Amino acid sequence: MKELVIGIDIGGTFTKFGFVDREGIFYAEGNSPTDMFDNVDDYIKNLIKDLKKAEKEIKIPYKIVGMGIGAPNGNYHKGTVENATNLKWKGIVPFAELMKKHYDVPIKLTNDANAAALGEMIYGGARGMHDFVMITLGTGLGSGIVVNGDLVYGHDGFAGELGHVNVKKNGRKCGCGNFGCLETYVSAPGIKRTVFELLASNTEGSELVKYNFNELTSEIIYEAAKRNDPLALKAFDITGRILGEKLADTVAHTSPEAIFLFGGLANAGDFILIPTKKYMEESVMGTFRNKVRVLRSGLIGKNAAILGSGALIWKDL
Amino acid sequence: MKELVIGIDIGGTFTKFGFVDREGIFYAEGNSPTDMFDNVDDYIKNLIKDLKKAEKEIKIPYKIVGMGIGAPNGNYHKGTVENATNLKWKGIVPFAELMKKHYDVPIKLTNDANAAALGEMIYGGARGMHDFVMITLGTGLGSGIVVNGDLVYGHDGFAGELGHVNVKKNGRKCGCGNFGCLETYVSAPGIKRTVFELLASNTEGSELVKYNFNELTSEIIYEAAKRNDPLALKAFDITGRILGEKLADTVAHTSPEAIFLFGGLANAGDFILIPTKKYMEESVMGTFRNKVRVLRSGLIGKNAAILGSGALIWKDL
Repeated sequence: MKELVIGIDIGGTFTKFGFVDREGIFYAEGNSPTDMFDNVDDYIKNLIKDLKKAEKEIKIPYKIVGMGIGAPNGNYHKGTVENATNLKWKGIVPFAELMKKHYDVPIKLTNDANAAALGEMIYGGARGMHDFVMITLGTGLGSGIVVNGDLVYGHDGFAGELGHVNVKKNGRKCGCGNFGCLETYVSAPGIKRTVFELLASNTEGSELVKYNFNELTSEIIYEAAKRNDPLALKAFDITGRILGEKLADTVAHTSPEAIFLFGGLANAGDFILIPTKKYMEESVMGTFRNKVRVLRSGLIGKNAAILGSGALIWKDL
Repeated sequence: MKELVIGIDIGGTFTKFGFVDREGIFYAEGNSPTDMFDNVDDYIKNLIKDLKKAEKEIKIPYKIVGMGIGAPNGNYHKGTVENATNLKWKGIVPFAELMKKHYDVPIKLTNDANAAALGEMIYGGARGMHDFVMITLGTGLGSGIVVNGDLVYGHDGFAGELGHVNVKKNGRKCGCGNFGCLETYVSAPGIKRTVFELLASNTEGSELVKYNFNELTSEIIYEAAKRNDPLALKAFDITGRILGEKLADTVAHTSPEAIFLFGGLANAGDFILIPTKKYMEESVMGTFRNKVRVLRSGLIGKNAAILGSGALIWKDL
């Protein structure tokens, strides 16, 4: 009988899921809409329907041994989703408890970046590491910090919000309400904002002059960088500098063996990795110099969010 | 038979030690010179002599069950003291191993701020807490970070160097070789430097005008603040602001239940606690607002360094 875990990744628009074994092999997968439902009960009803439908595809004898959920503002300690700004369900939702009515197995929940960190530890580049940091670069900057082989959840279950450390007092407005948070500089929208700042303050030519704010994406900036566009290269250098300087502070906190970059912006490879590493080394205390690797995630191309959510269960089995 | 641990706190000038039981009661104590010896073998020979002498004072039947050592640049994983700038022994000293020739008991070693954090957890205000941060404010700023009830040592054994997170690019020169480190602003010498900056840039009267740089101490600034000296008050406000803003970043990393301030500058009480808390709350991400207590250490007046070093052993017994 094959033991399987259901890994669920709740995004603002879609929820993706998979039935995964300990080795990370998918036996069934699917997705379900998130934003189509205004209340969580309707959402879960539909999600369960889609899960059960996918489950029918599993061709071998199996047993569900747990469910791991990655959710925005997921509280590991309580299994709740709390005041998630990009979900329609408001307040504190006892998500794990609601799911348990349908699947009576151990259910664990955390935020998506923490789940990705576990995925990196079990299936990716952090195998065998006890102290590392995962940085997910998407529409925001998420992070999962692993210390002594365990995720840092903190007192309230919400630790590891490196997207909201401060880069600049009264800096760029952040979705969280503060100003100058790291993710306003280092994320897909962050590098776009940097390009617009550079366009405003520079006179050198760039192929990026032809895009309006809605059109420009981090992929376009990456493509321009590959063609040696000076402004695109400068935008990556600035983005890596800001990330590297703040990661130097992170190193002073937890002294990790490695820092992994994952997500859209990390796909730019050396354009982001090289300046991040360079400026981190320039800023970090001598004690930590040349000790910390900055690496691209080993999960790129895999369904990291689902694997990571599933790893919430596998980790303790 | 009373079980006792030897707690040792190695400072640049003196080494203090005590024979302590699990409840933190001292059965003997003493000190031994540190900087009188150019090599570690002579130092240890003399320290052992002083330990044995003090041990004779113990009036009850006892058994030594371990030795805990707090040392500058102490590496918990290896039991070594590595390139400590304020000790005369250079390079990597296998300190725990050398002591074990004289006391064949479990020996653990870490830096002094980590030891103080353990002391806070076992004997001070952090009893029962699993996630907190200890900040020691002396000639530098040390820190010990506790996550899930364990100290964060990091991959290399040196985690928790919050004195060297960056406050200001190209800021004040730090003893570590970098510029703008937190401890150049927030420490006894740090607040003195701030007073001198304020004297240079302000015209308002202050009783602090009469001290030269050698004479001025954080105690004098504290005494002036108690008499409502505007410049002294401003110096505390600035110091608390810088500390609070950086602690907001720390909260985003590990989401602690409380942050404890310990050491000389913490003795200024509300003069430092109130601005630290205020600016931390202003800077911190909404998720963490009004969740983290900023408290004066519960070990003030006790021999925290020795208790904390001993706690390295008691914690695991």
